[in-house]
Amino acid sequence: MFKARIKADNLKEFIGTVGSLVDEAKLNVNEDGMQIKAVDPSHVAMIEANLIKSAFDSYETDVAEMGIDVDKFKTVLAVAGKEDMVSLEKDDKLNRLVVNIGNLTRAMPLLDTSGMPDPKVPSLDLPAFVSVSVEEISQGLKASKSVSDHIALTTTKDSFRLVCEGDNQNRVDLTLGKEQLEKLVSPEETTSLFSLEYFALMVNSLPPDRILHINLGTDLPVKVDADLAIEDLTGAQGNVKFLLAPRIDRE
Amino acid sequence: MFKARIKADNLKEFIGTVGSLVDEAKLNVNEDGMQIKAVDPSHVAMIEANLIKSAFDSYETDVAEMGIDVDKFKTVLAVAGKEDMVSLEKDDKLNRLVVNIGNLTRAMPLLDTSGMPDPKVPSLDLPAFVSVSVEEISQGLKASKSVSDHIALTTTKDSFRLVCEGDNQNRVDLTLGKEQLEKLVSPEETTSLFSLEYFALMVNSLPPDRILHINLGTDLPVKVDADLAIEDLTGAQGNVKFLLAPRIDRE
Amino acid sequence: MFKARIKADNLKEFIGTVGSLVDEAKLNVNEDGMQIKAVDPSHVAMIEANLIKSAFDSYETDVAEMGIDVDKFKTVLAVAGKEDMVSLEKDDKLNRLVVNIGNLTRAMPLLDTSGMPDPKVPSLDLPAFVSVSVEEISQGLKASKSVSDHIALTTTKDSFRLVCEGDNQNRVDLTLGKEQLEKLVSPEETTSLFSLEYFALMVNSLPPDRILHINLGTDLPVKVDADLAIEDLTGAQGNVKFLLAPRIDRE
Repeated sequence: MFKARIKADNLKEFIGTVGSLVDEAKLNVNEDGMQIKAVDPSHVAMIEANLIKSAFDSYETDVAEMGIDVDKFKTVLAVAGKEDMVSLEKDDKLNRLVVNIGNLTRAMPLLDTSGMPDPKVPSLDLPAFVSVSVEEISQGLKASKSVSDHIALTTTKDSFRLVCEGDNQNRVDLTLGKEQLEKLVSPEETTSLFSLEYFALMVNSLPPDRILHINLGTDLPVKVDADLAIEDLTGAQGNVKFLLAPRIDRE
Repeated sequence: MFKARIKADNLKEFIGTVGSLVDEAKLNVNEDGMQIKAVDPSHVAMIEANLIKSAFDSYETDVAEMGIDVDKFKTVLAVAGKEDMVSLEKDDKLNRLVVNIGNLTRAMPLLDTSGMPDPKVPSLDLPAFVSVSVEEISQGLKASKSVSDHIALTTTKDSFRLVCEGDNQNRVDLTLGKEQLEKLVSPEETTSLFSLEYFALMVNSLPPDRILHINLGTDLPVKVDADLAIEDLTGAQGNVKFLLAPRIDRE
Repeated sequence: MFKARIKADNLKEFIGTVGSLVDEAKLNVNEDGMQIKAVDPSHVAMIEANLIKSAFDSYETDVAEMGIDVDKFKTVLAVAGKEDMVSLEKDDKLNRLVVNIGNLTRAMPLLDTSGMPDPKVPSLDLPAFVSVSVEEISQGLKASKSVSDHIALTTTKDSFRLVCEGDNQNRVDLTLGKEQLEKLVSPEETTSLFSLEYFALMVNSLPPDRILHINLGTDLPVKVDADLAIEDLTGAQGNVKFLLAPRIDRE
């Protein structure tokens, strides 16, 4: 049994972050809330997204897992307005997820989860830490797209830099000082190279004013944490963690 | 001789409803106003749209028929702003319709009407009647598109339902009770299956706040009536009737 | 050495006019300001665009020329907001133009200018003169697109007309009287035929409220002048001249 009711915006945000990396995912529900852990098909990036029970208006469930077609779920939620509530219910008999928005009821078949991985987020010792809003870096990512398909993230004592070097002297350099950053801790200089596409997909799956908490090292993965389902009174009712492997083809 | 002047919005609305079903149509004008009757190329749907003489600022005509390229007419009208007036004049010598919007004059050749049908709208005895606004059902139609290409319209004593069943347990169900409907009369339960594409084209050719008057039966065509060219002071200066044949391939 | 700082909007406007005709151009800078002269690849149209030194917040340069990828430059400037400042600097060592917008720095390689022409704008004796805003004629150009690929510009003592004649009696006629024109001087009637595509590209590269100063004759090129970089206090800080050859295939 699974039955829950939640503000459409908060569920859209949760599913939107997952949709940046995968088309299908295993949704785990238990008495504490819901969680999706997934690895992208080329095993470069990993996501763990959570909504805690208090994110929901009402929430009742047994421990269960459901195979979700993420794109279809996003399309279903797209008809919901900003203030709409979404009701979810697992139809055990027909193995469907029934989604109700206002007068509209949509039943989606659940996918077989037996082939879906159960990734373990590795524990990493990343020396540098930056907090920055999505909008502060999104123009730099957009400008980089026409230059190259990888991007270097660098921290120094005083700055966080995104540098994208293309062929033929093309270059984009976004340098953010302490005044543009919420937080910066970088005892040593760090630098790693990443897929621009994956990094941009992760960042752009969140709203412009969301704060990203970024952990970095040298030639190490980047870990990006952010709050989800932020409520005025009670604060964040969920969170997302992204992990992205570095590209080591730099000199 | 045909010479008329009308608010751009009202003429756009009239032509827009016709354009939902056909690319070419025969425009009939006489001293009472203008009318288009047309059947879509696959003979599944029929339209009769009218603008009465009082919809026009000025209106002078003999009895005449003009073959209209509906898409081209829509493109011509697209340059008109909300408050613009459109003047129409038949150029008998060159067999053109001359459309004037502000300082801009556009002449469009008229098409040969000899092959264009003159459909008779059949008289039908449809037991159920529903009045509902376009916006109340448009999200249900949009959600249905990803599920199937046909839709069942059902009335009961207390509700009007749009149900779309896809393969593999996919399902959309929009159930509207009396509080969402302007009117509902359904002495017996009725249900018929229709092409989703045609029904959505017809509904979406009208503005979101327009009321649809829908006549339904079981395995019978659906008839949809709506007002056109609604003026604050004088009310509707025209109307449109759609007729859509049922699909009988249901069990 | 070249180093300059300017409001993003003014630089976008300058580059936008050039981009209507060419993909690559030679940017000439000297102590008076910057200039681009270019001919479109089919040698039908010519442009000369200028920004004077006072258009810039700061401006320091030797005499120099830089080969610019106009599309890439437009993409780079697209990330700038309305109020953003753009800093330009020539990197002589790596032969790049370095563009700085806020925290974002973009380096673009300069192109080889040796093959780029240095057109001389011919001196022409054009008897008629019209001043009209872009928005007054842009709908006529838009409506003409579906009718033909050439357009006749005609002046009489009292009017400026754009006439587009298609096959099969299709026709667009925009007639502007003295009340729609800023200025009209046409001692004799003039008329010339032009490529609609080129004329529309030129006109639409400028904002809707910009005044076009148009010089016309019969079967002669059209010359279009307009201000660029208009500042509230100091007026126009630049200008653009377009020259477009006539099409002589009219009867």
